[in-house]
Amino acid sequence: MRILILTPIKGKVDDTRRKEILEELSELVTPDVELDLKSLDHGATTIESFYDEYIGAADMIEKGLEAERAGYNAVVINCFMNPALNPLRELLNIPVIGAGEAALSLASVLGDFFSILDPDPPPRSYSHKIVSSLGLSNKLRSVRYLGLGVSGLSGRFEDVLGLMISEAKRAVEEDGAHVIVLGCTGMRRYSKKLSEEMNKYGVPVIEPLSAAINLAVSIVRLGLSHSKLSYPNPLKDVEKENVV
Amino acid sequence: MRILILTPIKGKVDDTRRKEILEELSELVTPDVELDLKSLDHGATTIESFYDEYIGAADMIEKGLEAERAGYNAVVINCFMNPALNPLRELLNIPVIGAGEAALSLASVLGDFFSILDPDPPPRSYSHKIVSSLGLSNKLRSVRYLGLGVSGLSGRFEDVLGLMISEAKRAVEEDGAHVIVLGCTGMRRYSKKLSEEMNKYGVPVIEPLSAAINLAVSIVRLGLSHSKLSYPNPLKDVEKENVV
Amino acid sequence: MRILILTPIKGKVDDTRRKEILEELSELVTPDVELDLKSLDHGATTIESFYDEYIGAADMIEKGLEAERAGYNAVVINCFMNPALNPLRELLNIPVIGAGEAALSLASVLGDFFSILDPDPPPRSYSHKIVSSLGLSNKLRSVRYLGLGVSGLSGRFEDVLGLMISEAKRAVEEDGAHVIVLGCTGMRRYSKKLSEEMNKYGVPVIEPLSAAINLAVSIVRLGLSHSKLSYPNPLKDVEKENVV
Amino acid sequence: MRILILTPIKGKVDDTRRKEILEELSELVTPDVELDLKSLDHGATTIESFYDEYIGAADMIEKGLEAERAGYNAVVINCFMNPALNPLRELLNIPVIGAGEAALSLASVLGDFFSILDPDPPPRSYSHKIVSSLGLSNKLRSVRYLGLGVSGLSGRFEDVLGLMISEAKRAVEEDGAHVIVLGCTGMRRYSKKLSEEMNKYGVPVIEPLSAAINLAVSIVRLGLSHSKLSYPNPLKDVEKENVV
Amino acid sequence: MRILILTPIKGKVDDTRRKEILEELSELVTPDVELDLKSLDHGATTIESFYDEYIGAADMIEKGLEAERAGYNAVVINCFMNPALNPLRELLNIPVIGAGEAALSLASVLGDFFSILDPDPPPRSYSHKIVSSLGLSNKLRSVRYLGLGVSGLSGRFEDVLGLMISEAKRAVEEDGAHVIVLGCTGMRRYSKKLSEEMNKYGVPVIEPLSAAINLAVSIVRLGLSHSKLSYPNPLKDVEKENVV
Amino acid sequence: MRILILTPIKGKVDDTRRKEILEELSELVTPDVELDLKSLDHGATTIESFYDEYIGAADMIEKGLEAERAGYNAVVINCFMNPALNPLRELLNIPVIGAGEAALSLASVLGDFFSILDPDPPPRSYSHKIVSSLGLSNKLRSVRYLGLGVSGLSGRFEDVLGLMISEAKRAVEEDGAHVIVLGCTGMRRYSKKLSEEMNKYGVPVIEPLSAAINLAVSIVRLGLSHSKLSYPNPLKDVEKENVV
Repeated sequence: MRILILTPIKGKVDDTRRKEILEELSELVTPDVELDLKSLDHGATTIESFYDEYIGAADMIEKGLEAERAGYNAVVINCFMNPALNPLRELLNIPVIGAGEAALSLASVLGDFFSILDPDPPPRSYSHKIVSSLGLSNKLRSVRYLGLGVSGLSGRFEDVLGLMISEAKRAVEEDGAHVIVLGCTGMRRYSKKLSEEMNKYGVPVIEPLSAAINLAVSIVRLGLSHSKLSYPNPLKDVEKENVV
Repeated sequence: MRILILTPIKGKVDDTRRKEILEELSELVTPDVELDLKSLDHGATTIESFYDEYIGAADMIEKGLEAERAGYNAVVINCFMNPALNPLRELLNIPVIGAGEAALSLASVLGDFFSILDPDPPPRSYSHKIVSSLGLSNKLRSVRYLGLGVSGLSGRFEDVLGLMISEAKRAVEEDGAHVIVLGCTGMRRYSKKLSEEMNKYGVPVIEPLSAAINLAVSIVRLGLSHSKLSYPNPLKDVEKENVV
Repeated sequence: MRILILTPIKGKVDDTRRKEILEELSELVTPDVELDLKSLDHGATTIESFYDEYIGAADMIEKGLEAERAGYNAVVINCFMNPALNPLRELLNIPVIGAGEAALSLASVLGDFFSILDPDPPPRSYSHKIVSSLGLSNKLRSVRYLGLGVSGLSGRFEDVLGLMISEAKRAVEEDGAHVIVLGCTGMRRYSKKLSEEMNKYGVPVIEPLSAAINLAVSIVRLGLSHSKLSYPNPLKDVEKENVV
Repeated sequence: MRILILTPIKGKVDDTRRKEILEELSELVTPDVELDLKSLDHGATTIESFYDEYIGAADMIEKGLEAERAGYNAVVINCFMNPALNPLRELLNIPVIGAGEAALSLASVLGDFFSILDPDPPPRSYSHKIVSSLGLSNKLRSVRYLGLGVSGLSGRFEDVLGLMISEAKRAVEEDGAHVIVLGCTGMRRYSKKLSEEMNKYGVPVIEPLSAAINLAVSIVRLGLSHSKLSYPNPLKDVEKENVV
Repeated sequence: MRILILTPIKGKVDDTRRKEILEELSELVTPDVELDLKSLDHGATTIESFYDEYIGAADMIEKGLEAERAGYNAVVINCFMNPALNPLRELLNIPVIGAGEAALSLASVLGDFFSILDPDPPPRSYSHKIVSSLGLSNKLRSVRYLGLGVSGLSGRFEDVLGLMISEAKRAVEEDGAHVIVLGCTGMRRYSKKLSEEMNKYGVPVIEPLSAAINLAVSIVRLGLSHSKLSYPNPLKDVEKENVV
Repeated sequence: MRILILTPIKGKVDDTRRKEILEELSELVTPDVELDLKSLDHGATTIESFYDEYIGAADMIEKGLEAERAGYNAVVINCFMNPALNPLRELLNIPVIGAGEAALSLASVLGDFFSILDPDPPPRSYSHKIVSSLGLSNKLRSVRYLGLGVSGLSGRFEDVLGLMISEAKRAVEEDGAHVIVLGCTGMRRYSKKLSEEMNKYGVPVIEPLSAAINLAVSIVRLGLSHSKLSYPNPLKDVEKENVV
């Protein structure tokens, strides 16, 4: 089984780092799952607005189409905001899974209430919009803002981790969260340490990219894909004349 | 006051037709409102999928930015699906109004329950998704599908009108609708006749483009625009390094 | 176009003040819109309870009927609580718009989350009830209470304004509001100054009466009115015998 | 314990009939509960619109105030539409219970889904509005319209009963109702026969006036009343100056 | 009328205490209502988890079946968590009422917003789950935790009462509650004193067992029971072969 | 990794059949996943009521505890109704997944609207209750009843399959479903054929046991389990004295 992880931002990942990432991720799946990782030739450098999403959409779509042609079994969108999820599902027959939707779907199975750690400063509502579009607002206890921005996540490890732990604890103690969802796949490197800390309280921490890869694998193993009634193949311009 | 109506599809409207349309629309506003109409250089020929929306997004964004620079006071998106509404609101300070959101917001003021006439065949859920994203699902009684496709709307006037009247009546009688919302700005030419027919039952018919123009005019007159906390200006790539 | 603004409280507004108010409001509309302002002969002195609403209802209804007979094109109810909105819509064919519903409908278009400034002390739930009756509870972040009462709004300008600014900022910073809605048309004189202050944060401030007048004008220009299926004409007593 | 049943329509009930009604209703309560029945001096002849409600409101309020002064322990509003419930709760400290709210609250305890038999023709939405104001829309399966009007309920007993049985069965079989709620206290005389019929299917039939009387008795026995934070005593005009 | 109060925990109540309890409860009902009280032979010592509920379920079911055979008219489950409510309703034709559901249903009639006093420490979500299963989440303002555990409720009277008063006041002042619901029938002995205190603010305090007994009495007097379509009689194993 | 599939009904599965089933299911997972299958010594013969669930709960709990002690990595409950899910999650630290919750969670990822095929006759509401407890009611289009009962599912293959196909198609065409969820794990043997048929329409068919096994595998691979704040370990009776 081959799964393409599509990172919706531009920028070459150098081969060493790319290999490293794939090795880390491969630990989450069985050897029969071959993971691959691509980022965009044209797009924003981070996804922190709808505009950022739209800038890279054309290239996302192209790379998604290529993936299907190249025989990949599924595409995973490596971003909590699930950019280009809808058009990719329309265009492709293989499953397309967004990291944010996978994380939130899993969170809602594992506990009654969750909070999201958001890299950006308040009062951003992107996280709220994603939760709401999935119909899960009644389980959202709070969005906790780190105020670092996505690029700030690559700051000093101990500082960022300390902030994440402190906000996760406040989400549990002050807001009543039972599950913590990382609101950006850029937080993955803190995931293990944060999990260890929160496990003391019995609180699962969900890393979106890992959740999405596993969901994609499951869907492929089950022989399923998204409904073509919810995501019908777009008509080509010539076909639009003759709908009925 | 100058308002740009942005049609999210490609294709030159010839000058005669363009003038005609603007004359029709100008009847809905006072002489101090100057309307202008632009379509895209790059985009799909109709908006019947999320893919169609994304194809034209880059050009939509460019034309929106131009409009603000050129001193327009508001931009109206001439499509029920509100394509590129979110990124345009992020980028612009002048109000941006989508035809679908304006129509549904007005419908929810004018009556308890509404139904949407959708040009496409069942079981498309684009109309449901728009209603749901506005939080108005509890007022939606049904989506009635014409099964013509957007291009089919330019069929024989009497045939299309007859179908629309028949589906609107079924929405009222079978589904309990109190208001009819046209689910495509391409239905505008049938709007007057359908209204006359439905007025007999006390049922308002809402044409989305007209609703959006009037909402945009209102917002400009009130000196308002969308919240910049809901639609913050996207950071440029260089700014992303320094969020805090 | 002639629009009657109906203030649901008793008390003669002297002619100078009345002229002043109408001049202020006329700046929000084009010269073809003629505004008129009436208050009640019988009613409460403020609307701060359902009881206050019911005291003036008979006179509201009478004045609404007169307005339609006198050829007005729409009636605007000058109160956030929308008193007598339902029976007036049943009795009249011309549009009837409540200030509260217009403000909240506009707020839900302009941003993701709003808070209301309520003139009364906590824990009044009138504002919550109005939001809930419009199906917009998921967008309400908080009701911020001024604790002045409606009559307290005519206190020292700087004091009241200061309190409003401070509560509006807390709504944004502590409660996550993206839009501020004035919860009483008696706050209109603070509207401009508060807007200036909140604009610094990109937060729109919605004044209900202005919103309602503009919504009424839009509906008239579109040739629409409320659905007669949602607000059927009440039967006269003699007609009730013969429904079928 | 003394409970006043307040019928929100005008018209003298002759003493024989009044006694008869009170005897029937007294069978539902213990001998220590003294029931009394009053209708209005000024009001509509039926409650089939918000206008009808408002016409009688002043007299409802007056009679409610009298009841408290006269030492009644509770007031029951004898109408599914709960007219004047809000202002009466504001003005009175003794419990005030509306027939519609009591019926729907009980229905939601007894089963998963209910349907309402509405005396009026479709597509009236008064029943929907009452359900929605109580937050119970997710349990409403359908409103089944008899199309008789309130006055039509006093038609030939067998005809009306037959229609009610037939619509109640369709609510169960076609709409999935598990409980039937009578949507008008004017249906009380059919309640027993309809119950017998629906009991065959295990479907409870809820008569609103009986439900309301029993709820009022319970609340009095528990020493409770409505929250004065939800229904604060209206300020007198002189008090409004000094809120803080 | 005979009503069995079924306490879902094991443990003999000595006869003196049992008599005392029944005398206290009998003050809430008329002399024609005979109350009886049983606890379990097999079960947990308190109900503070779903596990606790399941341990006693078999005995609950047996005692419920006995009660119907013995001619009781209703069964009341003496626990806020409503343990075994669903299977008992399936098995019995006489009404079965849970203390938690009765309390919350009454709370939602008496005011706009309620808070629950929960005996356990945060962040337990049992109270939230019960509210949510009844569809009343939009009226829940907060769960206030006493952190004592159920057994801690039998601590020093003044200490426990003081804590309850302090948390109830915070629910009103900080969370906006208009009604206080006791989240455990073990709080009954504090109910009167707490009510007296909260009455000063116009805030009703609802004791679940009292609410449930009165609801059961009402349902019996009305000749009603739960819908057998919502709670169909379970098939015996031999019957399962022949459903159609 | 070892996963125990716990069938909540009594009855020995003979070894041949047991091996067969495990072989079929093992095709859905990688060789490193060892599946095991147990049914109950004490319990009902099918789960078609809450009573059926409670009969087997004690044995379910015992076998769940054994599984954890025996080193299983997860427990899957082989029933759409998720019996004993809550107490098992409280007692166990290893993940416990119910077939119904896994199926519905997956359905909500794969499409906008789903319908459930229910083996029982109408108007059962068990399926509705499960959907509602997961907060997914807004995505449920219909419950389609086969009217066979669980035991009827082992009828003539072609007949049952034919009925399932016909109801699934009606769910799509008449009710607007985009995804079909099998509402009983007893429908597994029809799953492949039904999927083939519905794939023609682009409609995924979700078999609950397969979905649950894959979800359990994913959660184990991710090193996660349910939140212990949502499902805290039940206190032993001796511990209950000392909560604080």
